[in-house]
Amino acid sequence: MKISLPTTHLPRVLIIGGGFGGIMLAKSLRNQPFQVVMFDRHNYHTFQPLLYQVATGGLEPDSIAFPLRKMFARQRNFIFRVAEVQRIDPEQRTVHTSIGEVSYDYLVIATGSYTNFYGMADLNAHAMSMKTIPEALDLRSMILQHFEAAHQERLVEERDQLMEFIVVGGGPTGVETAGALAELKRHVLPHDYPELDLRRMEIHLIESGGELLGAMSDKSSSDAKKALEDMGVHVWLSTRVTSYDGEVVTTDIGQTFESATVIWAAGIKGCTIEGLAPEAQDRGGRFAVDAYNRVRGHERIFAVGDVALMRTEAYPNGHPQVAPVAMQQGTWLAANLLSLAKGAPLKPFEYFDKGTMATIGRNRAVIDFGKLHLKGLIAWLGWMFVHLLYLIGTRNKLVVFTNWIWSYFTYDKGTRLIIRPFRRQTQLRSPEPAKT
Amino acid sequence: MKISLPTTHLPRVLIIGGGFGGIMLAKSLRNQPFQVVMFDRHNYHTFQPLLYQVATGGLEPDSIAFPLRKMFARQRNFIFRVAEVQRIDPEQRTVHTSIGEVSYDYLVIATGSYTNFYGMADLNAHAMSMKTIPEALDLRSMILQHFEAAHQERLVEERDQLMEFIVVGGGPTGVETAGALAELKRHVLPHDYPELDLRRMEIHLIESGGELLGAMSDKSSSDAKKALEDMGVHVWLSTRVTSYDGEVVTTDIGQTFESATVIWAAGIKGCTIEGLAPEAQDRGGRFAVDAYNRVRGHERIFAVGDVALMRTEAYPNGHPQVAPVAMQQGTWLAANLLSLAKGAPLKPFEYFDKGTMATIGRNRAVIDFGKLHLKGLIAWLGWMFVHLLYLIGTRNKLVVFTNWIWSYFTYDKGTRLIIRPFRRQTQLRSPEPAKT
Repeated sequence: MKISLPTTHLPRVLIIGGGFGGIMLAKSLRNQPFQVVMFDRHNYHTFQPLLYQVATGGLEPDSIAFPLRKMFARQRNFIFRVAEVQRIDPEQRTVHTSIGEVSYDYLVIATGSYTNFYGMADLNAHAMSMKTIPEALDLRSMILQHFEAAHQERLVEERDQLMEFIVVGGGPTGVETAGALAELKRHVLPHDYPELDLRRMEIHLIESGGELLGAMSDKSSSDAKKALEDMGVHVWLSTRVTSYDGEVVTTDIGQTFESATVIWAAGIKGCTIEGLAPEAQDRGGRFAVDAYNRVRGHERIFAVGDVALMRTEAYPNGHPQVAPVAMQQGTWLAANLLSLAKGAPLKPFEYFDKGTMATIGRNRAVIDFGKLHLKGLIAWLGWMFVHLLYLIGTRNKLVVFTNWIWSYFTYDKGTRLIIRPFRRQTQLRSPEPAKT
Repeated sequence: MKISLPTTHLPRVLIIGGGFGGIMLAKSLRNQPFQVVMFDRHNYHTFQPLLYQVATGGLEPDSIAFPLRKMFARQRNFIFRVAEVQRIDPEQRTVHTSIGEVSYDYLVIATGSYTNFYGMADLNAHAMSMKTIPEALDLRSMILQHFEAAHQERLVEERDQLMEFIVVGGGPTGVETAGALAELKRHVLPHDYPELDLRRMEIHLIESGGELLGAMSDKSSSDAKKALEDMGVHVWLSTRVTSYDGEVVTTDIGQTFESATVIWAAGIKGCTIEGLAPEAQDRGGRFAVDAYNRVRGHERIFAVGDVALMRTEAYPNGHPQVAPVAMQQGTWLAANLLSLAKGAPLKPFEYFDKGTMATIGRNRAVIDFGKLHLKGLIAWLGWMFVHLLYLIGTRNKLVVFTNWIWSYFTYDKGTRLIIRPFRRQTQLRSPEPAKT
């Protein structure tokens, strides 16, 4: 079945994915001679940098998501469909999706990335990931359900297991999640759970590399480690998690952890789609692209953001898989598509590195901007400012700002509802049969 | 298995349910010589009067819910457990729950009510109800998914069915929901769905009685009807829905409607629990209680709110099943429990009717307060003020207020994400098999 779209004489740019790359590309094509069609599994854009705050009860999911139709309501050449893309047919210039098939003139793959468990099936089955809003909500429910369940455990070991949290991966997501858990332990949970001995709650951050925030400066890495340790987080460097059966985490240094909650932030891989030439694949599930974001072996197919791997002199292993790269590639590609349509020469992509940052907690953050390093309150304010700036939607900015101000003065986190029927819980810990 | 609770020499008041009745009772027992134990299926209190705004994209679910543990964090004699109560054993003075059993000195049933389909299995299977946050989120997703699906329908009849909304029940919930849908049609959906002809979206409000808002004055009833009709809602009075197979609604006046979305707000029944004496049951799934909220046939069991039916001279068929009754009964019962413990005489419950109100839309609402009738802007402001006043939590008040101000000036509704994996959808309308 063909997907029914408004007819037009304009060439069709088909964008798969409404992440940072996809939306910047679509916005940059406003009022340009293209029909812009976007597909996404969800009807909303997710501001992934703040997902960890949803998972740890600091923000409501609605405030870090934005409906894609609303985003482009005033853009006449934009068409949106909720659809899951199944296969690309480059010969026929068509894409097959869950709602039918559609042809394209130019195809842009902006599907982003998902959690990479590096083939470890047990971790895939038992560890929690945090790349989508439903996942973040599941994690929030799971954390809270484990504290509820701890009241019913008579054995200290069982209670400790429910209150032991393992965060795997020392990148920004892992650091920020561990910090947020430490704040929950310190300021929020003791009030909520007076019957539990919250001093027994433990947070471990496990990183396989030799430092946290490997992409940042040595100074920021060590500042972040110190800040986390001040907050009571146990940081394990040069330690690799090797298995997790839902109860025990094993590592390559022999250390084991008994934990009911493992949060996996240790890696991502590109969301590839079937149908492209074999040479299009590069490592990490990413598509090899040239300096114009054109996928290797294809004339009319492009890729931007996390799923694209562009090897340049400055970045021989590709750019970092972060939002600014996706956004800049999206904007840049829009200009190149215009040139292509006009027959003008294309311009090779140039990445402008705006610096990197990570927040650890209240008044604690680190920022690298060139040679400049910031930490503490000023970095934390900078982090909040930048995230509010890039968060899409004025209503969202207002709600997030309200939450942050509220949390700052009350030391509280507002949204800790167990909302979803959380399924994994029942697999992990089936309730004991009633005894008399 | 026994539920493990802190030991105490104080008599235990066991409250089943964290709705308006339960929380007012528990709050009123603060610093009193009782151990107060509360069970609820959820870890949060739901502000049900605003659920319809969650279902229609006006508010995020987190802003109308409040974690019960947080609510009572400073109340030392309060203990909470997430548990589903299965059975009461009045002989043994115990309650059996999903997490074990527990004894009580005084038991208070404050379980509220759920949707009453009056035994109509097809409506139960296909119509949407709106009594909990998960239900409201499902409804929000369903409404939006139907508009998404409408793009793929080639037949006008099929598209119309997806854009036809039937609200059953002309009480406050039905009126408010129909009004909110009319505002979506007018201000929001045309921007989101430029490819659809939104003029073809129809909203029908069906009421079996002779007027809307039967509990309110004739003036308010007719004002509400006029306001809804001004907004394009088709109001059907003295019309009873008799069946719905997921596609066609039939009524007792012969009129049928082809609709993919039926919202059922036509009745509730009390959430009873097994184990009580036969004479405890009154009509509508409610427990018969005396003037002290004591359940008939039981010495130490009480019921408050929607699940209780207290027949008095002024209210021979019981009080209305609304929040103020539950709140006042909760507070009143606290005083009576104290008297009971002291051996002092109990006081019969007296209901102070603070009036009733319903909102229809922007600048449109009706309020009855004794002989005073308000409508229009002033009633609408009054409605908002009262709802903000009773909404629990300062953060929630701030977020809801932000949303309302935002919506007022932008004519927009902020939160229209399809977040839940919506299961009924796939049963109702399986996607057409791909044709070539």
